[in-house]
Amino acid sequence: MTTQSHNEAEEPVVLAEAKYFTFVRQGNWEYIQPRNFTGVVLIVPITDDGKVVLIEQYRVPVKARVIEIPAGLIGDKADFADEDHLLGAKRELHEETGYEADRMELLSSGAPSAGSNSVMLSIFKATGLRKTGDGGGDHTEDITVHEVPLPLVRAWLEKRRAEGNVIDLKVYAGLYLAGITA
Amino acid sequence: MTTQSHNEAEEPVVLAEAKYFTFVRQGNWEYIQPRNFTGVVLIVPITDDGKVVLIEQYRVPVKARVIEIPAGLIGDKADFADEDHLLGAKRELHEETGYEADRMELLSSGAPSAGSNSVMLSIFKATGLRKTGDGGGDHTEDITVHEVPLPLVRAWLEKRRAEGNVIDLKVYAGLYLAGITA
Repeated sequence: MTTQSHNEAEEPVVLAEAKYFTFVRQGNWEYIQPRNFTGVVLIVPITDDGKVVLIEQYRVPVKARVIEIPAGLIGDKADFADEDHLLGAKRELHEETGYEADRMELLSSGAPSAGSNSVMLSIFKATGLRKTGDGGGDHTEDITVHEVPLPLVRAWLEKRRAEGNVIDLKVYAGLYLAGITA
Repeated sequence: MTTQSHNEAEEPVVLAEAKYFTFVRQGNWEYIQPRNFTGVVLIVPITDDGKVVLIEQYRVPVKARVIEIPAGLIGDKADFADEDHLLGAKRELHEETGYEADRMELLSSGAPSAGSNSVMLSIFKATGLRKTGDGGGDHTEDITVHEVPLPLVRAWLEKRRAEGNVIDLKVYAGLYLAGITA
């Protein structure tokens, strides 16, 4: 079903190459391409007592504390270069929230910003959660963990937004894919 | 609730400046910033007979035809520089799908990629739809319109993904925000 666009015929031109991204122009398109990582995993963690586990951290690009689902880059550290997406999702879940999951189900994959970023994401649902650590992220991260009852999550997110937080739209995508109704 | 990060103290450094985006490094962060547009609107159009209107177009960054909800840049053309998000959403809906909407409801706003793109999006639900044009986008676009019954949309998206299309994750976010159950 993929067809050739007239823009596709033009060669990509590298405008800048940094540590995490290469910035490219190709015909009328401008976009970033991941460097030094191979993918991104997202996790929708649902506790046995019906809460979704969300995280909050400051994000420089939007100058705000952002409400997100746990996520991480895959293949960004030499130690983990060969890990697959499932193992990476388990590692990030534990690092960021302190939870280990008995069950991880791949819900889907897709693009967060198909017009400006070539990265693709995989979204997992994590259940059978056991708290075995503190969470909060690695030494470079400052993450707050929130556990929100599923019937309240839509209202909770709107309240946080009204208070000045930014909501990462992938939270809503994850809730939809996990079968949670707004 | 916003706090200062140690990265925030560092000044942004422009790595490249192109037509639509500036590519910036700030401390450990690398991200793109919109240029020549002020925002992005997304629309979840629901017909009176219970279908969601999706669009399909080729996206060079992911090298695939992508399934999306209608969307557009606001303030990217001199003619429309002063339009607000609601008017922009109506214009994009009509350009891309041929529909005009009697009712537009702002569902929420948020960030698609808070770690790598400073752009913020607004999502509207469009109802009371009347077909008054052909859709397909402006002269630079090649858009196919799909109308999918709501109870079938999750399965339809998975089928398209299995066939090699990429699903824009904002489709799922829009469905959640519009109150559609997976």
